[in-house]
Amino acid sequence: MTLSSAEFESLMDTIRNFVQKEIVPLERPFLDADFNAVAPQLDALRQKARGLGLWLPQIPQEYGGMGLSLVEHGHVSEALGRTLLGHYVFNCQAPDAGNMEILIEHGTPEQQETYLKPLLNGDIRSCFSMTEPENPGSNPTWMSTTAVKEADDYIITGHKWFSTGADGAAFAIVMAVTNPEASKYKRASQIIVPTDADGFRLVRNTSVMGESGSGWASHAEIMYDGVRVPQTAVLGKEGAGFAIAQNRLGPGRIHHCMRWIGICERAFDMMCDYAVRREVAPGRPLASQQTIQNWVAESRAEINAARLLTLDAADKIDRLGSYAARDDISLIKFYVAGVMGRVLDRAIQTHGAVGLTDELPLAYWFRHERAARIYDGADEVHKRSVARRILHSCI
Amino acid sequence: MTLSSAEFESLMDTIRNFVQKEIVPLERPFLDADFNAVAPQLDALRQKARGLGLWLPQIPQEYGGMGLSLVEHGHVSEALGRTLLGHYVFNCQAPDAGNMEILIEHGTPEQQETYLKPLLNGDIRSCFSMTEPENPGSNPTWMSTTAVKEADDYIITGHKWFSTGADGAAFAIVMAVTNPEASKYKRASQIIVPTDADGFRLVRNTSVMGESGSGWASHAEIMYDGVRVPQTAVLGKEGAGFAIAQNRLGPGRIHHCMRWIGICERAFDMMCDYAVRREVAPGRPLASQQTIQNWVAESRAEINAARLLTLDAADKIDRLGSYAARDDISLIKFYVAGVMGRVLDRAIQTHGAVGLTDELPLAYWFRHERAARIYDGADEVHKRSVARRILHSCI
Amino acid sequence: MTLSSAEFESLMDTIRNFVQKEIVPLERPFLDADFNAVAPQLDALRQKARGLGLWLPQIPQEYGGMGLSLVEHGHVSEALGRTLLGHYVFNCQAPDAGNMEILIEHGTPEQQETYLKPLLNGDIRSCFSMTEPENPGSNPTWMSTTAVKEADDYIITGHKWFSTGADGAAFAIVMAVTNPEASKYKRASQIIVPTDADGFRLVRNTSVMGESGSGWASHAEIMYDGVRVPQTAVLGKEGAGFAIAQNRLGPGRIHHCMRWIGICERAFDMMCDYAVRREVAPGRPLASQQTIQNWVAESRAEINAARLLTLDAADKIDRLGSYAARDDISLIKFYVAGVMGRVLDRAIQTHGAVGLTDELPLAYWFRHERAARIYDGADEVHKRSVARRILHSCI
Amino acid sequence: MTLSSAEFESLMDTIRNFVQKEIVPLERPFLDADFNAVAPQLDALRQKARGLGLWLPQIPQEYGGMGLSLVEHGHVSEALGRTLLGHYVFNCQAPDAGNMEILIEHGTPEQQETYLKPLLNGDIRSCFSMTEPENPGSNPTWMSTTAVKEADDYIITGHKWFSTGADGAAFAIVMAVTNPEASKYKRASQIIVPTDADGFRLVRNTSVMGESGSGWASHAEIMYDGVRVPQTAVLGKEGAGFAIAQNRLGPGRIHHCMRWIGICERAFDMMCDYAVRREVAPGRPLASQQTIQNWVAESRAEINAARLLTLDAADKIDRLGSYAARDDISLIKFYVAGVMGRVLDRAIQTHGAVGLTDELPLAYWFRHERAARIYDGADEVHKRSVARRILHSCI
Repeated sequence: MTLSSAEFESLMDTIRNFVQKEIVPLERPFLDADFNAVAPQLDALRQKARGLGLWLPQIPQEYGGMGLSLVEHGHVSEALGRTLLGHYVFNCQAPDAGNMEILIEHGTPEQQETYLKPLLNGDIRSCFSMTEPENPGSNPTWMSTTAVKEADDYIITGHKWFSTGADGAAFAIVMAVTNPEASKYKRASQIIVPTDADGFRLVRNTSVMGESGSGWASHAEIMYDGVRVPQTAVLGKEGAGFAIAQNRLGPGRIHHCMRWIGICERAFDMMCDYAVRREVAPGRPLASQQTIQNWVAESRAEINAARLLTLDAADKIDRLGSYAARDDISLIKFYVAGVMGRVLDRAIQTHGAVGLTDELPLAYWFRHERAARIYDGADEVHKRSVARRILHSCI
Repeated sequence: MTLSSAEFESLMDTIRNFVQKEIVPLERPFLDADFNAVAPQLDALRQKARGLGLWLPQIPQEYGGMGLSLVEHGHVSEALGRTLLGHYVFNCQAPDAGNMEILIEHGTPEQQETYLKPLLNGDIRSCFSMTEPENPGSNPTWMSTTAVKEADDYIITGHKWFSTGADGAAFAIVMAVTNPEASKYKRASQIIVPTDADGFRLVRNTSVMGESGSGWASHAEIMYDGVRVPQTAVLGKEGAGFAIAQNRLGPGRIHHCMRWIGICERAFDMMCDYAVRREVAPGRPLASQQTIQNWVAESRAEINAARLLTLDAADKIDRLGSYAARDDISLIKFYVAGVMGRVLDRAIQTHGAVGLTDELPLAYWFRHERAARIYDGADEVHKRSVARRILHSCI
Repeated sequence: MTLSSAEFESLMDTIRNFVQKEIVPLERPFLDADFNAVAPQLDALRQKARGLGLWLPQIPQEYGGMGLSLVEHGHVSEALGRTLLGHYVFNCQAPDAGNMEILIEHGTPEQQETYLKPLLNGDIRSCFSMTEPENPGSNPTWMSTTAVKEADDYIITGHKWFSTGADGAAFAIVMAVTNPEASKYKRASQIIVPTDADGFRLVRNTSVMGESGSGWASHAEIMYDGVRVPQTAVLGKEGAGFAIAQNRLGPGRIHHCMRWIGICERAFDMMCDYAVRREVAPGRPLASQQTIQNWVAESRAEINAARLLTLDAADKIDRLGSYAARDDISLIKFYVAGVMGRVLDRAIQTHGAVGLTDELPLAYWFRHERAARIYDGADEVHKRSVARRILHSCI
Repeated sequence: MTLSSAEFESLMDTIRNFVQKEIVPLERPFLDADFNAVAPQLDALRQKARGLGLWLPQIPQEYGGMGLSLVEHGHVSEALGRTLLGHYVFNCQAPDAGNMEILIEHGTPEQQETYLKPLLNGDIRSCFSMTEPENPGSNPTWMSTTAVKEADDYIITGHKWFSTGADGAAFAIVMAVTNPEASKYKRASQIIVPTDADGFRLVRNTSVMGESGSGWASHAEIMYDGVRVPQTAVLGKEGAGFAIAQNRLGPGRIHHCMRWIGICERAFDMMCDYAVRREVAPGRPLASQQTIQNWVAESRAEINAARLLTLDAADKIDRLGSYAARDDISLIKFYVAGVMGRVLDRAIQTHGAVGLTDELPLAYWFRHERAARIYDGADEVHKRSVARRILHSCI
């Protein structure tokens, strides 16, 4: 879809309105209960969004999506990120969004028919099963899960955790070592495993920051106890697991960073609104305090900078591809996560005690988005890799 | 009790052992369930501790306590702070510890008999009901709850929240305006209200950082709907509410700051232990990373500094009283809370994903000790008040 | 001049080459002596630059400049900022650049003939005389210098300092109160004062960070002891002093911020180059240290963000004018100054002892660019004013 | 000398008065000129101080010093650190103070007679010549300067820089490799070299932060072009160079850290004084700004913490020796240097433009004490070494 800038602005208005009027009101029931409790309402909202053409923003039109560029989808992701549930309603939530893209690019017609179609349709959910408790996420090539060939099948054995949304998912894309003798980055494959396969065992939804969660909003520990799947379940070529994952990283990073910026903007608005309404003495609003003013100004500068940096990376990916933009993709990871951490911290401090309660989404983000500095490669990993490339180019 | 330095060191060894062997193992059941679920085991442990003389460390011996100085109690508080449940087991947990001290200093013989005795004995719990949702905690003189005289009684009407441990408490000490015409700091009184009084309504345990909690580990919202108590329920003189609260502040601050240092030390140990055990590549521990080394060194310096600063303030209170030490008491509030925040953040980042889970107490502290920069006067309030005194002295 | 993007890139290549090959080599003589000592060589270089069409980049073509947009000039300013003397060579150095723009917009034909023409030609220099030692720069309306009418003249009396480049300047633009009864922002006028006027007394070049400097690279304290100038020396309308100053602020801010980014890029390159060349042990370059890597990555992210933020503000000024962009203009002030401070600090720390010496320009920037957080409104002033506007819009 | 606490307080009062009344007034002439220009006045002041018994505070009484413990000397060093010239006046300035201690502990009677005596007497100055431009200071065992035996002599060849106070010094203590085949820490020796020896060439006083300085306040680059000294010029045993240097480190660190705290206290006082005197609007002092208040409170907390940490390390050295306190000695290095950096930065920002000028010592400290994070081992080196020891103890 090639949208004129006026058309795109109009689309963004529609989306912002929908988020504010339709999705934000579902936050409190979600915070008071859990995902499964609000799932029916969310599914009704999904139908409504879809009816308005607000569905699969990042997916090509031939697959039923809106066909937005990465820059355009970035803006949408920011708008959706303002609420805890925005991406889910538009069916562009992680990890399903990423899985859709993998299936579009690497799925066979059969895989697309069986897995992609219902996923795009919002009929099923999926998960991505990569991280292992025994091995460091910072070193993705160090992996213990194996897929051993036996006749026409793979027998998958391994232990995974932090598989987001596995609870209730129809299938998992599992990263497993298929070629242990190959060079480091060619050892693993991505394999589709239906969650009702024998030997697939969801041990538990890991309790994270005090909550086990449910459904999409959960992170499962999974045992693969000799799960048998046909070799046709592999995605792309055997041994291409990392290459596929790597390729997905750019768009996924834009998705997350712009979502974080949406969180920042909502927290910023809440901070400002509270500051002008809350009085520290009769007639003297919190907003008159210079410390609050400092936080407002610093947050505004940092959020603006974070957005420009992320959109610039998105534009580079749109124009030149993920590989050319790999430094930018690393930089925004830690930079934007850092901005979000500081903005949320200031918003909570401005609110005082109420900022700690579940009256507002701030405390939810504070505890669950702490993960932003850890998942998809900890800040330290990204700093190191981008610095090494820069320094190497100086030799 | 006047302990020689060798005797005190031996006492501390006993306490540290007890904490490690007896209390720490109860953390996981607590994290997996809630306070009420582990209350029976905790009460059994209380008996054991009491049997060893480890009971009421900060309370004078004539009241059945250990009679430690504030500096000595500071060390104990650090040792207990290493675990989520340490202070409760020794019956020196907030807010009961503070309430005991108020009752000792200001309670009538009848009040002491009825409320202090069972509190010291561990038979009941209590709460302190001061903060109001509609009024800023940063301005404690701005208070809406009133206690109006009627015959020999007070009729208390108001709305409080963040009354820690109200759930299951036998009585509350309520701060209410009794003298609305008096000067700012002489308007309010502290009044004892049994929680089974008519009109005392525990609305709910406020959900804080995703958890409503239970029992001691909860923060209640309370309506006082015309609660009637006899005027003999006032603590100290009418209008002395702030003076009493102010006086309690010094020892309470030492208690919390040393508890936070205990948290820091435990988090520091966990960070170091994990760093030497976890490998980022075969044979290459996380501890070999310079970033981790920076965090270890910076944390060690900051924790040491925080401890010295807090013990110095405690010593000043011991020698000269809370008033003379009021600057120091403000300084440690924000300084030590800041150190704790940074140390917990580094410890979690070092652990990666597991640091976010409830396998370890780190995530609990991360979310619940965020409050340290807010309660008892937000950092910003303390900075302002100490700075004003310093600057005023320069005129 | 409307340049295609390819033409502009080619221009930028020319400029970058000129800076590197021609201007950078003059840094050492400048650092070893002072401005006046290298002035002859600089003037020769100016001729060379001018011969290549590299002259007055921000000035309209009809006035003999290159007629660049603010965004384009931003890029040029970054390229020139890489060296201590870049802007001077292209005759777009502060404060002359700003004075030229004021004279173009507000100067009478006579003023333009007498002052603007030789300024554009590089025959004279000028200064801007606004800051007063007795009054806070953060409150520009609080001003003691007066210009009192007498017959057809003004009699100017006052005390100024930090008049950059007054030493050797042909004239000063002096901010003085002409209408003391007018409303706050309409009291002062900008008046042209030749430096050879009676009563104009350059007291001294104030010693700043250990150096009094000379010529353009100095900051003078000036007494105006009843200086008499004709009333035709006023710029624009009487009382328009602040309006004119305000209007100049946007482009001036872009100039400085992009110059600071040029400093950042040079310091960044020096840091990386040194890190790969310097060994901490035989065969083990400094670049292998993770702390250095962290600094490289963090600096890269922050510099990129600073540039995008500044160019975005420049684009807004180009499209909508300074008033519409006033928040952005405030935000980049403190944000970019902060980035520069951190990048210079890391570059020096990476170099160790040599970073403190005058072998490199780092130490010069470290001490003299500390002023960036102070002049043109301290960071705190900008934070406050932008925050107040944002917060006001939330009421 | 064993001083009662009252006697010590009285001594400290005397010292503080002397510093304020006698030494501080010499700062401006020093800042306006250089060390050599004020040397005669300083020497007169030295006589006056000595007459009051304020001489060599850290040196044992049998050598003519005051015989203070390290904790006591720490307090003196803080008092002297408030001014740029304090330590020099009491003849306890680096590097002479350290050289005296080395000569006392390791000097032969002849060395003591020739070098120590006039040094203690203030008749000569000395320098310590260790750092080499070609080798990293972070790795002190990597050293190129050699002392080769020839008959009864050493022939010293090498290139040193940052030899503080070499200009005008009577002798240098030179670190040179005497035993290239020995194990890493036993290769070098400390050798006394008279500065009038043949082949000793002071190349220049390196320009540091814009100033070459002179006399004691300078840092020389020195060539040792085959300097011949008798083998009796070695200090202690051959190969003991590092052991001697290491041993000196503890007291030297206390000296510097307490000096930095003196700088902090002076800067803090200046910041507070200026804040209450300077008005941002008529009747509205700078001190009313919350940002300033934040800086005052944060600085107060950090300076107090820094002092307690340093005195605690000093006490540990006094009681247990430098080796037992080596972690503490590393921790205070980077912690106190960091505090000083922040306090100076805030003091300058509070002063605005005047803080950048040489009206006040702030700008001098800002530029010259930047070195604090670099010399005697960069912060990063100390962080790494202390962290490694801590982490190693966890294995």
